Amino acid sequence: MRNVFNREKIREEIIIPPYEGRSAFLRKGEELIIIDLEGKQVGDFICFSHSDPTEHVSPVHMRASLSSIRLKKGDLLYSNRRRPLMQLLEDTVGVHDIFFPACDYYRYKIDFDKEDHPNCHDNLETALKKYKIQPAVIPDPINLFMNNVVDDSGDYVIEEPLSKPGDYVRLKALDDVVIACTTCSQDMAPVNGWKVTSLIMQIVEAE
Amino acid sequence: MRNVFNREKIREEIIIPPYEGRSAFLRKGEELIIIDLEGKQVGDFICFSHSDPTEHVSPVHMRASLSSIRLKKGDLLYSNRRRPLMQLLEDTVGVHDIFFPACDYYRYKIDFDKEDHPNCHDNLETALKKYKIQPAVIPDPINLFMNNVVDDSGDYVIEEPLSKPGDYVRLKALDDVVIACTTCSQDMAPVNGWKVTSLIMQIVEAE
Repeated sequence: MRNVFNREKIREEIIIPPYEGRSAFLRKGEELIIIDLEGKQVGDFICFSHSDPTEHVSPVHMRASLSSIRLKKGDLLYSNRRRPLMQLLEDTVGVHDIFFPACDYYRYKIDFDKEDHPNCHDNLETALKKYKIQPAVIPDPINLFMNNVVDDSGDYVIEEPLSKPGDYVRLKALDDVVIACTTCSQDMAPVNGWKVTSLIMQIVEAE
Repeated sequence: MRNVFNREKIREEIIIPPYEGRSAFLRKGEELIIIDLEGKQVGDFICFSHSDPTEHVSPVHMRASLSSIRLKKGDLLYSNRRRPLMQLLEDTVGVHDIFFPACDYYRYKIDFDKEDHPNCHDNLETALKKYKIQPAVIPDPINLFMNNVVDDSGDYVIEEPLSKPGDYVRLKALDDVVIACTTCSQDMAPVNGWKVTSLIMQIVEAE
């Protein structure tokens, strides 16, 4: 694993195993590093305002405020109230998705005829219980490391992620937030390179 | 106004005035025609399953099921349960948006410093009361006639709609549904050609 920061400042390290989700609290000013341990693993990521969890990072509002369907280094992660909750400070891959849904029960049931496949939607819902957050609707995720390739007509294909072992993103909390991230459970398509592996989250103390 | 169908079959005609929203019920098999009366007017459109309004047309799931960020003639309007609730049968414009949010209180307050500007989010919420539908979160809309132009980098600009007076879309209900549509209230940007005008909805009986 690449040594990406000053280890003394890490106050928590959380492993996200394959097919599972985890959550964490970050104070304003703290930073979150999400590392793709083996490479090609998508992480579905959501983020809530700690003081009012009805406010959350919202890709549809991000696309509006960023005038883009692409997430780039330096971008602000806008909420459903058009307020930035986090910022993407660093990104060793540069390819993520901000327009695709979390995989869910219906995805595996309808498209793959699987009744009990693990899925990102339910993993995120479960992970949030630690902080007693129970949204009426799980927000759309930012799909970290997900590689969709859009053609001129607006059609796209999802290809294997470009992330290599140790690649990461670094996000700064602009307010007190609760975040959740799950290793995407899709093992029957190129989304995660046809298998599901671990991610690691590290929380870095504010300077 | 273009004569787009056999008038004998229309069972209801609903004018959507500028800065307002309207709702309607369609039985499975009925068709909905939405006409841009003067041209260049965006309509924010949402659709719910009548039997269970927690199921609704969902642009994020449409992008997944259609493998596209563009809405095309013949496309199915998928729900948050990956099930098609309507189909786009006819389309005299061919340019719509399925990745932008409804304008809302926060859009006008934060980006334009307007406290009381009419907005699509609240208009849709109000229009749904007629059918006693009160979603915890108003779903993302399909922005009919909205003209976003995306460049190779994924950045985009919103230009004036290409719709001319009398242009329309025709949608078929694949189940019993409640729909709502609002004339987009944005009058300080090219979204609706810098002014807000009326739309007309016509409901056509099933054959």
